Amino acid sequence: MKYQWGVMERAFDSQIGELKKLILVMGGHVEQALDVVVQGLTQRNPKRFEEVHKLEDKINEEHVKVDNECMAFIAKQGPVAKDLRLIVSLIKINADLERMGDQSVNIAYTGKDYLNRTPIPMPSEIEEMGNIVRKMVKESLDCFVREDVELARQILLMDDEVDTRKSKVFTNLVSFIQSSPQHVEAALDIILIARNLERLGDHATNIAEDVIFVSTGKDIRHGGKYS
Amino acid sequence: MKYQWGVMERAFDSQIGELKKLILVMGGHVEQALDVVVQGLTQRNPKRFEEVHKLEDKINEEHVKVDNECMAFIAKQGPVAKDLRLIVSLIKINADLERMGDQSVNIAYTGKDYLNRTPIPMPSEIEEMGNIVRKMVKESLDCFVREDVELARQILLMDDEVDTRKSKVFTNLVSFIQSSPQHVEAALDIILIARNLERLGDHATNIAEDVIFVSTGKDIRHGGKYS
Repeated sequence: MKYQWGVMERAFDSQIGELKKLILVMGGHVEQALDVVVQGLTQRNPKRFEEVHKLEDKINEEHVKVDNECMAFIAKQGPVAKDLRLIVSLIKINADLERMGDQSVNIAYTGKDYLNRTPIPMPSEIEEMGNIVRKMVKESLDCFVREDVELARQILLMDDEVDTRKSKVFTNLVSFIQSSPQHVEAALDIILIARNLERLGDHATNIAEDVIFVSTGKDIRHGGKYS
Repeated sequence: MKYQWGVMERAFDSQIGELKKLILVMGGHVEQALDVVVQGLTQRNPKRFEEVHKLEDKINEEHVKVDNECMAFIAKQGPVAKDLRLIVSLIKINADLERMGDQSVNIAYTGKDYLNRTPIPMPSEIEEMGNIVRKMVKESLDCFVREDVELARQILLMDDEVDTRKSKVFTNLVSFIQSSPQHVEAALDIILIARNLERLGDHATNIAEDVIFVSTGKDIRHGGKYS
């Protein structure tokens, strides 16, 4: 009986390990998607935008797979307490990552329009936002796997850096449009891309909040007001 | 023993019933939030924007409550098959409704800026988008509770009506900015609000897709490619 329990326990842990691996691979694809679309913009290279679609296909496939495996795990293993929080958080992180894939595709579409217009300077903040968000995704998933609550809290602060840059892009481009209204479409493309990057940062923030929830059982969403 | 089982079964069903009621109440608050912010815009009444914050507080409180009750249900009842799909979908719908609350607040913030600027005409499409999205939220939750797959499919089509209007707002406002660059900020506010409404429609679409998943077990996300 004791031995049997040992076997069950190992199956349980290794299934959780597999699920964590799956979400890390998916996160890697999200990072790549973000990478290629930001490079498409900064290098003015439309081919990079094309690469996002293969990555999105992978992300979508992983999205359905993670959901299915999490449900199978719940049905078979009946997790409780922290393990249940972990599985429910995986389902949520999965949804966030899938939407990050969507947002990257949105950037590619807007980016393609942008490259077809009369060039206007690309604000340096766009590349910076891309870099910060990519770091947020990577680190939020790292700290999910390692259950590193301290790092998760630092990621929440990184989101402010994204928001500050977005506001700067907005302000500068509004002035630019006023002085050069003939470039309104290209400027609007950049504004929408900055907005997409801001949302990508929000999704990474959601993941960091989930990490804190799994490890501490504390729901810090909505300022922890309702936990 | 048989009697005991009957008691357990009734507890199970009544708990699912309570969870469904909770999500309907939350959905009602999301509809109201959407209502007040669109009225704030069309009536040029900043007081309506203020009302969204109380509604958001309620939505956030319900958000945490639904998550907790769903986890408690999984831990205690160990649902499988369709019941498990229902609970997991509730967790996802909950996340979508919460983000719809956030989007409504975003509209209120942008709307307040808009009312402080020199007035420009509000495109009729904004009110229309608000009406369609509100209908989508209401009907998607109705069909979730009634497990009405046919209605859910119709809701997916309504999202196209939202997107068409958003594109029209974009095109018209780009021309407007070119001819009246002094109004770029007010026009940009409307463009961002149209984008928020588009996202609200996307969230309602997610809910409709979840309804189809619960009832049929078919994952139609990503065109059903990975189910």
